[in-house]
Amino acid sequence: MTVEDAGQSRSKVTITAIAQEAGVSVPTVSRVVNGRSDVSPETRARVEDLLRRHGYQRRVAAAARERAGLLDLVFSDLDSPWAVEIIRGVEEVAHAAGMGTVVSATHGRTGATRQWMENLRDRASDGVILVTSAIEPPLQEELRRLDVPVVVVDPEGSPALETPTVGATNWAGGMAATEHLLELGHRRIGFIAGPARLLCSRARMDGYRTALEAADVPADEALVVRGDFYHESGFTGCQALMDLPEPPTAIFASSDQMALGAIEALRRRGLRVPDDISVIGFDDLPEMRWASPPLTTVRQPLAEMGKVAARTVLRQSRGEELDSPRVELATELVVRASTAPPRDQAAAPATPAAAPAPTAAPS
Amino acid sequence: MTVEDAGQSRSKVTITAIAQEAGVSVPTVSRVVNGRSDVSPETRARVEDLLRRHGYQRRVAAAARERAGLLDLVFSDLDSPWAVEIIRGVEEVAHAAGMGTVVSATHGRTGATRQWMENLRDRASDGVILVTSAIEPPLQEELRRLDVPVVVVDPEGSPALETPTVGATNWAGGMAATEHLLELGHRRIGFIAGPARLLCSRARMDGYRTALEAADVPADEALVVRGDFYHESGFTGCQALMDLPEPPTAIFASSDQMALGAIEALRRRGLRVPDDISVIGFDDLPEMRWASPPLTTVRQPLAEMGKVAARTVLRQSRGEELDSPRVELATELVVRASTAPPRDQAAAPATPAAAPAPTAAPS
Repeated sequence: MTVEDAGQSRSKVTITAIAQEAGVSVPTVSRVVNGRSDVSPETRARVEDLLRRHGYQRRVAAAARERAGLLDLVFSDLDSPWAVEIIRGVEEVAHAAGMGTVVSATHGRTGATRQWMENLRDRASDGVILVTSAIEPPLQEELRRLDVPVVVVDPEGSPALETPTVGATNWAGGMAATEHLLELGHRRIGFIAGPARLLCSRARMDGYRTALEAADVPADEALVVRGDFYHESGFTGCQALMDLPEPPTAIFASSDQMALGAIEALRRRGLRVPDDISVIGFDDLPEMRWASPPLTTVRQPLAEMGKVAARTVLRQSRGEELDSPRVELATELVVRASTAPPRDQAAAPATPAAAPAPTAAPS
Repeated sequence: MTVEDAGQSRSKVTITAIAQEAGVSVPTVSRVVNGRSDVSPETRARVEDLLRRHGYQRRVAAAARERAGLLDLVFSDLDSPWAVEIIRGVEEVAHAAGMGTVVSATHGRTGATRQWMENLRDRASDGVILVTSAIEPPLQEELRRLDVPVVVVDPEGSPALETPTVGATNWAGGMAATEHLLELGHRRIGFIAGPARLLCSRARMDGYRTALEAADVPADEALVVRGDFYHESGFTGCQALMDLPEPPTAIFASSDQMALGAIEALRRRGLRVPDDISVIGFDDLPEMRWASPPLTTVRQPLAEMGKVAARTVLRQSRGEELDSPRVELATELVVRASTAPPRDQAAAPATPAAAPAPTAAPS
């Protein structure tokens, strides 16, 4: 379809046609439509001019009135421990805007994703929020053709995407967790990493290493073990660390599930947390305050990430420009009862002023 | 509006008009429409005849083709630990039927519920699944006027409702948990009850008492304390039990959250689970297998309850008759590592054949 055709049936103009006429790629037009800043001013001006001339913006605005008042929120799987927090955030914003939140899982199956795509078209959803890598690249392309605003909520940290993303400050969180343990007086701090393919894993580990370096604590590679963010890998990772000739006095498990696995491995060895060894997690899933002991961890503001994603997609659907294509919300250290000064306090340089009192000593 | 009017504008006939003409109450017509069995055969025949004559069924069928392909799933709050399990079950069935699942929370606020009701009307949802008492009676009445099939998923056990409900066998679950502790050799079994206003609380407690009675273990009312299903009440309830002159050797907390609270209270006293005292919960929330120790509990099949609710509402929307207005899915004992024979095994009548070996002894 050419732009000439589009001019005749105005409501049918596509970004493909705009891209052809502007002599740029479809992703570039998509970037302009999505309000992203990584387009040169000249290109943006040319594309925006064409969008205006062909009534693209007006079409979006007109279509909005016919839309269903629905936001689509798509997960790979609904058994992710994050899911309900993100749903909660998205639903709150959607509800306030008088809209419904359609929750789906693609179960990693291409067939299910295709079916979902067809349903999405039928129900004329106002916007789509994808959680992480739920949608494979070819389907991202299809989504783009549907011309519906898309935002990615990304607790895992993905490489640069076409679409706007909302994430969390994983590197700063890794720093904060490690600094907390250092301030308590720990010097041998074990680290259970997440999968290497995820950027958030690397960011958390880099934060850990940088904090050690800043405190002049020599990095011992034997203290770093690989996990996959799930419970079992925290259990086995902790066992490997405790089997070292010189085991750590504290463990930073870079996900809450792995932290719980580590605590269970320690319990089975007859070791008490935090009396014998400290454990800190990452995520702050809602149930972590009910762990025994309540888990010290780094909070990812998952509900807030859902809210920001929903606001972003609504802004896009109104044709507003975004401040930034990538938003990272701040992580926050949450000190509960699974961390305390090392047992042999004398052996470590004490920093009593900075060390909070252990909050969960047996009463 | 009279039925005469309805005849003229066929698509507008309401169950109120049908009720007037049949000389029965609106709930009775609703029961017939919803395929419930608790209507006398004569009344059913009269109402069905009127429904047919006024084209009510045909209207439903015709409307179905114009409907949006959406199921509405409504919670009071999305921070309920059950929420994601139920969403998962509903979504699976809806997805397979090519439908979207709209998830909402009413936050217990009437305003929010009204807004949701308006959105529901606008989006022409095919059916509504309410979780527990999310909707107050006046709004249930409004829902009825919308003429959309409604099913209640009811993990708490509600008194008889107009609408079909899907629950779980709470009484049998209470029996199973108590029998498990008895078989391990426990005789002083503490019970932390849920809120008295919820039927499921009473059913679980009755199951506990019946199991004791069946085993000829005298009930000691001092061993029963009141909680509210939340974590904090398990913590304080356990403290009260352990402060008794003769504390229990095992605690049945009638929700998982209360069981975790009890385990934390025991940890603070320097007591180990299950070495010093056994704890069993109720629900089997997904994270219970990651508790330390992994929690022995009674599983409510929450995802399955969501699936059955979704299938039921789809069946209603096709005008099919239901097998039963109230379905209770079976609960199931899940033995993990928080229960073991009492420490002073000799003091209790041993039943070694029935007692599983403790699975989580420190290695």
